[in-house]
Order: sequence, then C-alpha cells, then structure tokens
Amino acid sequence: MSGAPGFADWLEIANLKARYCRFLDTKDWDGFAGLFTHDVVIDTTASGGPRFEGRDAAIASVRTSIEAARTAHQIHSPEIEIDGDEARAIWAMQDRLLWPNGRTLTGYGHYHERYVREAGAWKIAESRLTRLNIEMTQPDAGV
Amino acid sequence: MSGAPGFADWLEIANLKARYCRFLDTKDWDGFAGLFTHDVVIDTTASGGPRFEGRDAAIASVRTSIEAARTAHQIHSPEIEIDGDEARAIWAMQDRLLWPNGRTLTGYGHYHERYVREAGAWKIAESRLTRLNIEMTQPDAGV
Amino acid sequence: MSGAPGFADWLEIANLKARYCRFLDTKDWDGFAGLFTHDVVIDTTASGGPRFEGRDAAIASVRTSIEAARTAHQIHSPEIEIDGDEARAIWAMQDRLLWPNGRTLTGYGHYHERYVREAGAWKIAESRLTRLNIEMTQPDAGV
Repeated sequence: MSGAPGFADWLEIANLKARYCRFLDTKDWDGFAGLFTHDVVIDTTASGGPRFEGRDAAIASVRTSIEAARTAHQIHSPEIEIDGDEARAIWAMQDRLLWPNGRTLTGYGHYHERYVREAGAWKIAESRLTRLNIEMTQPDAGV
Repeated sequence: MSGAPGFADWLEIANLKARYCRFLDTKDWDGFAGLFTHDVVIDTTASGGPRFEGRDAAIASVRTSIEAARTAHQIHSPEIEIDGDEARAIWAMQDRLLWPNGRTLTGYGHYHERYVREAGAWKIAESRLTRLNIEMTQPDAGV
Repeated sequence: MSGAPGFADWLEIANLKARYCRFLDTKDWDGFAGLFTHDVVIDTTASGGPRFEGRDAAIASVRTSIEAARTAHQIHSPEIEIDGDEARAIWAMQDRLLWPNGRTLTGYGHYHERYVREAGAWKIAESRLTRLNIEMTQPDAGV
C-alpha cells in the first residue's frame, strides 16, 4: 500500500525532480544522467512523442532534441506517494523552448512518475508526460 | 491562533490544492466536486468575476465557463497556516486558457483560501482570487 | 557541513521566499524590506543587470525599476540546504512584467540564495539571479 510520506523522503523526491529540471535546462548532462535508473522508461507517446527504454538512449535523444535550444522546464504542486523503496508522483509542468531558428514551444501538462531507492538514493525509474496544451510558433510565421 | 503547521497537515492541504488544479484542467468533475465543502464560497469579484455560494452552483458555473477550453491552472509557493481543523493559505497562481474560437487568456494572481477538516479530510471552504495581471487575446485580432 | 533540513526550518525559508514574491508583486514595500538582512547583496550581473549591497539601496532600485509595472514573479521547486543559522537555496523562477508604455518581459531562471537566522527569523542575505532565457517586446514593434 502507498502511505503518507515522511518529510525526509518527500523532500528527497522533490529535490530529485528539481534537479531534473535544473540539470536539463542548464545542459548539465553528467548531473542529469545521475538522476535515473539504468532501465528508466521515458514515455511521451501521450502527446505524439517518442518512448525510450534505458538511460543512455533516453538521454541521447533528449540531448539531440534540445541541446541547441534555450529551455525552461518548471514543475509545480507534486502529489507524491511513497511505499518503502518505491514512490510515485504526479507533477504539474510547464515548458518553454526556443530553438536557434526561431521556432518556439510553450506547453503545459503533467509528469506521471515512478521512483525507486537504489543504494539509499532515489532515482527516476519511469516518467510519462501527458499534455493539457502545446502551443508552437514558427519563424517568420508570426504568432 | 494560527500556528506553524506540521508536515502531515501541510502536505494534505498542498495535495488538496494540487488535485484542484489537476481535476479542473483534466475536466474530472466528479473528483473536482469532492474537494469542496457543501457551502463553499468561490469569489472572483476582485477581478470583475462572479461570486458563488454552494458547491453545486460553483461547479456548474465553472464547467460552463471552461468545459470547452484547454486550460492549465498552476499554483506556486503556498503560505499555509493551520489552526486545529481550520486552515488558511495564499497560493500564487498562473492560468492559461484557450477557447475553441481562438480566444486566449493568460493570468497571474493569488488564491486566498480557507479550508476545514470534515470527517478527517481537508476541504476547500472558501476561495478568493485576486489578480496581478490578466492578458487576453481575441481571434483575428493579433496580440 | 550542510545537512538535510527539518520541516520547520524548510517551511520558514519556503514561506520567506513566497512572501518575497507576493510583497514584490503587490508592491508592499514595507513588508518587502522586512525580508532582508541589513547588508543583503542582490546580484543580477549574470544577466547584465546591476548588483546592490545593502537593503536600502537594493529596495530603492527595485522600486524604481518596477513600481509602475504590473509584475508576477513566481518561484518553483526549491533546493534548500540548512546548516544551523545559515541556509542556501536554488529556486527556479519565472517573471512576467508589463510596463505602462507597453513594454513586456517574460523571463526564466534561477535564484541562488543565502539566508541567515537573525533573532529567530530567517532573512535573505544574498540573492543572485541567473537566466535561462529572457524574452522582451517593445510597444508598436510586434512580437
């Protein structure tokens, strides 16, 4: 059963996802890689995106898609449940991306995530992104 | 007197408002209804909007105004005070709405709320919305 | 060494920064002044802005730059570390500003902060702002 989390575990999971956004947006790829389990699943199929299994494949793809962009991924109001060495959370999210060619994306949605504690440290084991809305603009196309 | 909250109560209230946003934006109206007291007061008069007394009237009105829109209500940095079975909070908020006809709204403000504990579960008893800014666009009218 | 914070201290620091945003955006300058140490350092040089030493100089400058604007500063996913009567945090942030002449700014970044406990109350002793992105528009110039 999932229970009410204690503060220490709740905080570690909140900080884990905070670092996810910060390392992603500051392009700290070594730090970013340290946040996931080896067999992490990243699933964006709900909004027409790809699905990755395995940390190396997932990070390589993320780097390719946003390495050249200015990005801000921001997370809000987590609903975290913890059961021993496993946990789940739903996070509200917003992202804003600007590519060098002028293309932009502003999106809103939720991360649905599963975490596991490995050798005392919480890691992201699964992350599924659902979208409320995505707005994109193209260069020279106005808003 | 209001006192410093313990983590368990603080977290329940934070999760309550997180579900408020998630159920509202995913249009889970049954889940949404379960978050309020029977006699909840929803007050948006500070920004020229309506004021509702009673859960059924409030939810019916909310549904009418945003059922067809894509919406994202996001909440930030709560200041929560708890006094026994009553609590208060101020939440920073941002909302982004897109109606089918192309109309959009982006707003910023604060929810000022009161909660009561009913049969062991915190409920929203009063919610007053103040605005820092609202920006709206009309279809065919550019920005 | 910095350690895992207890909930009471973590919450006081989270509430301190929540009030920072709320007082700043509602232009409650007396409340705002009470949040800082006398010798606070505000540093925005990382994004080409000024650096201030001392509460009075910092607040006077902030007032001059945004007193006439509608502003919303919102903060997310803090990473807080506490060591006795000193603490540090990194906050993700977003700000939206509209000046009376129609100029706008939307920005994303991080506050890197240091806090000290003075007579039992946490105060902001240092705040350094780094930016992921800043987007500005000028009146009559479109997007």
